[in-house]
Amino acid sequence: MKVDGEELRPIWFDDQSQVVEVIDQRRLPHEFKVLALDSVDTVIYAIQEMVVRGAPLIGVTGAYGVWVALKTASDEAGFIAACERIRAARPTAVNLAWAVDRMQSKILPIDGSEARLAAALQEAGAIAEEEVRNCRKIGEFGAEIIARIGKSRSGPVNILTHCNAGWLACVEWGTATAPIYVAHEQGTDVHVWVDETRPLNQGARLTAWELGKGGIPHTVITDNAGGHLMQHGMVDLVIVGTDRSTYTGDVANKIGTYLKALAAKDNGVPFYVALPSTTFDWELRDGLKEIPIEERNPNEVRFVQGLTLTGIDHVLVAPKESDACNYAFDVTPSRLVTGFITERGVCAADEEAILGLFPEKR
Amino acid sequence: MKVDGEELRPIWFDDQSQVVEVIDQRRLPHEFKVLALDSVDTVIYAIQEMVVRGAPLIGVTGAYGVWVALKTASDEAGFIAACERIRAARPTAVNLAWAVDRMQSKILPIDGSEARLAAALQEAGAIAEEEVRNCRKIGEFGAEIIARIGKSRSGPVNILTHCNAGWLACVEWGTATAPIYVAHEQGTDVHVWVDETRPLNQGARLTAWELGKGGIPHTVITDNAGGHLMQHGMVDLVIVGTDRSTYTGDVANKIGTYLKALAAKDNGVPFYVALPSTTFDWELRDGLKEIPIEERNPNEVRFVQGLTLTGIDHVLVAPKESDACNYAFDVTPSRLVTGFITERGVCAADEEAILGLFPEKR
Repeated sequence: MKVDGEELRPIWFDDQSQVVEVIDQRRLPHEFKVLALDSVDTVIYAIQEMVVRGAPLIGVTGAYGVWVALKTASDEAGFIAACERIRAARPTAVNLAWAVDRMQSKILPIDGSEARLAAALQEAGAIAEEEVRNCRKIGEFGAEIIARIGKSRSGPVNILTHCNAGWLACVEWGTATAPIYVAHEQGTDVHVWVDETRPLNQGARLTAWELGKGGIPHTVITDNAGGHLMQHGMVDLVIVGTDRSTYTGDVANKIGTYLKALAAKDNGVPFYVALPSTTFDWELRDGLKEIPIEERNPNEVRFVQGLTLTGIDHVLVAPKESDACNYAFDVTPSRLVTGFITERGVCAADEEAILGLFPEKR
Repeated sequence: MKVDGEELRPIWFDDQSQVVEVIDQRRLPHEFKVLALDSVDTVIYAIQEMVVRGAPLIGVTGAYGVWVALKTASDEAGFIAACERIRAARPTAVNLAWAVDRMQSKILPIDGSEARLAAALQEAGAIAEEEVRNCRKIGEFGAEIIARIGKSRSGPVNILTHCNAGWLACVEWGTATAPIYVAHEQGTDVHVWVDETRPLNQGARLTAWELGKGGIPHTVITDNAGGHLMQHGMVDLVIVGTDRSTYTGDVANKIGTYLKALAAKDNGVPFYVALPSTTFDWELRDGLKEIPIEERNPNEVRFVQGLTLTGIDHVLVAPKESDACNYAFDVTPSRLVTGFITERGVCAADEEAILGLFPEKR
């Protein structure tokens, strides 16, 4: 995506240094820093510490991570063990396991380390480019929904989103933001309510930054505010991403998504989930019971990071002695989801409709 | 309430200096500071800038503020104008207007400035003591609900609360916390999920501090987390306070309360609102349409205050260029409220039941 006139992605392969590099998303919007993924430990660190995050990007990072593993492993057993460690770096986003598996099945049948390395690099790049194409298609299908609302009345279409399912979470376009970027490109007047998304504020930090750089009017709100806005007709639709959705229509996404889905339902506001097919889990039927929900360090709740007059710092917001707890995701049951926006089109959040779009998964 | 062995209230009259003093709640839990309310401007500043907050405490501060106005006004017109300014300092909590009106109707018929001052001080003190008695009764009635759940099974009763409706928001006991303190006192095993309550983090800062000082087990969570906890059976009941409730059962409270009420309904978790009768609005029928919702400075959303290694500071969490918006309250419709806990007992959230407890308001 264009940022201050320059094409930018959250992950890239640097031909000259032969290293995979990523934007350190923990420092945005206040500082732009790049991290080189030059070891398997660094790949795992980047995924676990959320240097990179977002289901599609975690997948792409995992794919490049397999290339790093191949390059640095001393033998086949070491390579496979490294892949296993990458695969297990975070539990909720299904794209990670999917990408590592795809990389392994591409590489393992190949003989010769040079040939393997070349194939790995090519496959990781292919996964990245497929996600770019998927996201663009999601954008085109989703923009039709936004344009339809825009044509039905005057003023901007007000879209609420939670967390960051933007290009920073993918490679380009994003999932939830893709329809917004495409609608804007096509001339539809849009305005985005950006949930700040505690504890790590991916909305306030990343979505607001992205939208600002893309020239999209937006307003940052607390995670508490969306219900009130919907009660007062100030939200036309909700679009969120997902870390894993079952083929029956249940949606795991950043904690708090479920609360917005309830408010959308209560106020007749359409609630869409935008995702590439790589984020569907084709095995699980019951999202609430079966999708593993990561519990992260409680200090992410106890501290908030931001910019002071002297630089980036953390502030403690609770008493030192108080416990905290930090579930990273929740599951929105399919009954609250108006529809999925995928690279093959829009469908209802039920098994029949989803498998109708992806018949090869039957 | 006892804090580190000392009796403490958020507001008191200092006999020696003849000044009303309050805890500066903006600095808690990291710093304990007292502010003297020695002018009408300081009273208004304290209310507007949330040095004091919480519907009952805003009412009591307004009452003492009328005494300050009386003491400092040069004539009757100046006194009445000052009362009007205090009355309008914040729009949502109905207790403020109620307390100022009560003070004025007590004072105005009295002749002689000494007699008036004495009556004003006595009336403000009476309002404070009435709130203490109200809150204790709320605690006793609410503790019965908690004890009933506690007896039905093993382990602590898990209570979720939003914002701070503790003794810091009242004078003693609190409203939402009173049942918790009384249940704890009576030996019921309780654990509290404390919503951090962005933007000003009254949950993480104040409720957690209060509960810690009171020896109540508690865990701070983001405002996003409650739905997930309820989906997984980790919340037995929700108790919140309110800034204004209609006699028809609609509840204005800190923004985000509505989202928790939706989740409680969706998961069959009882949702109680604890309030003294001074927080009922006996005029309004439709809370969603009629209760004025304060819009505060967007910088409260853009910045988060907390403790750094060098002291209390603010961090900017969003891009400098991004807009933010900051509605302070939302309205939970009566259909989502299991019941009100008042100083006269527990009742359903409907006109008949509420007027049944307060027949003099018919």
